[in-house]
This record gives sequence, C-alpha cells and structure tokens, in this order.
Amino acid sequence: MVELDFDKGGGLLPAIAQDAETGEVLMLAYMNRAAWENTIKTGVATYYSRSRDKLWVKGETSGHTQQVRELRFDCDADTILLKVVQLGGAACHKGYKSCFYRKVENNEAVITDEPIFDPDEVYKK
Amino acid sequence: MVELDFDKGGGLLPAIAQDAETGEVLMLAYMNRAAWENTIKTGVATYYSRSRDKLWVKGETSGHTQQVRELRFDCDADTILLKVVQLGGAACHKGYKSCFYRKVENNEAVITDEPIFDPDEVYKK
Repeated sequence: MVELDFDKGGGLLPAIAQDAETGEVLMLAYMNRAAWENTIKTGVATYYSRSRDKLWVKGETSGHTQQVRELRFDCDADTILLKVVQLGGAACHKGYKSCFYRKVENNEAVITDEPIFDPDEVYKK
Repeated sequence: MVELDFDKGGGLLPAIAQDAETGEVLMLAYMNRAAWENTIKTGVATYYSRSRDKLWVKGETSGHTQQVRELRFDCDADTILLKVVQLGGAACHKGYKSCFYRKVENNEAVITDEPIFDPDEVYKK
C-alpha cells in the first residue's frame, strides 16, 4: 500500500499531469487522499478543486478526461506525477493542450502554442 | 514584466523542473518571488526550501545545479515550469536522475530507476 504524505501539504499534494506519449507537461492540480484513491480505483485523473472546494474528476464538464497510463510519486512522497492520455487533446480550460502555453522571454510572457478548442463553446459560457 | 500569483500559494508557488532534452520530469520544488527573480536573473534554478526556510540555489551543496533553458508558467500564473540541464545528471537528493523513481503498481511502490550517485558520498554524511 503506497502511503503519501498528505499531512505535509495540509491535506493536498501537487499532482503533475504529463502526456504519456510526448512527455509534455500538461497541467498541475492538487489531490487529497480521496482524489488519489479515486484515481487509482478508476484510472481516471481525479483532483481536488481548491476554488470549488470539492472532488473534481477532470473533464466532467468538458468531456476531456485524463486516462492514467502511469502513476508515480516523488522521493518525499509529497508530489504526484501522472502520465495520461488527454481525451479531447487539450488539458487547459483556456483551450490549449498544455496550461504552460506561455514562456518567459526578456521578462515578458510570450504565447507559444495555438488553442485547440474555444472555451466559450465547450463550457457554454 | 511577468507577474505571477504568489499570493495564491501563500507566497510559494510549485515549480516543476523538466529535463530540457528528454522531457523527463525531474522534481518539484517551490519558489517565492525572490527565488523566481533570482532564477530569471542568473539562469540557474533557485527555489525556496520549505524545510530550511530559506532561498535555495539547487546544487549549492552537491554541485548539481540546474541550468535553465526555458521558463514557463501556467494559465492561472500559479505554477512554474522550468526546462533545465541538470548538471551531474541527477536531480534527486537520493541519487536518482528524477525524484519520481517509483511508480505505483497494484497499489504498491515499485522502484524503476537506478541511482546515479551515492548520496552518502556526495553529501558527506
């Protein structure tokens, strides 16, 4: 039984989702123990939403769930790494494949990626 | 000027270090504003050590610094992604290339990697 150090993060540990094929880092979210256990049980990435203060099966609104291919944790057992297949091709709620679509250049933000979907369409705002 | 949301993390944001060549996720640590600014200024990954409660130029003890090739941040400006060249070849204080040297299989931890250095040698314990 894998025991993570949930106490260290006040109940929440950071979880990095990485594209299982390309290795691209898609996003970072947080898991509590229930999210971790649900991810293991279902094979679908489940996080804890800090803004909504509840369990969050990523993709429950957009249909863009993350199918977990591999689950790792770090030396201190306080960070989680998921290798996933991202359904719909985009992890970011702004429509990009990765939430890290901006890089820093000369201390300015530069958008390097193209959006895959239109958030206004998908979330029906 | 890139403005990150340091307030959100109580002054500390998670920072993911990824191998610039292979895309392997090496580690996750935290940055405060001073660490972020020092990383940009020097091109060497600088974190904030939560256990030692001070700025931490990764590798200052082991010599295994991280040369930053690219710096990214996410949609909510509350997570940092660094693409780095890891000097010494190992990011983990336990001697592994990546801190994520264990995966979960049937709810058990399985070590999948080989250590690159002996921590007792490097840290002269």
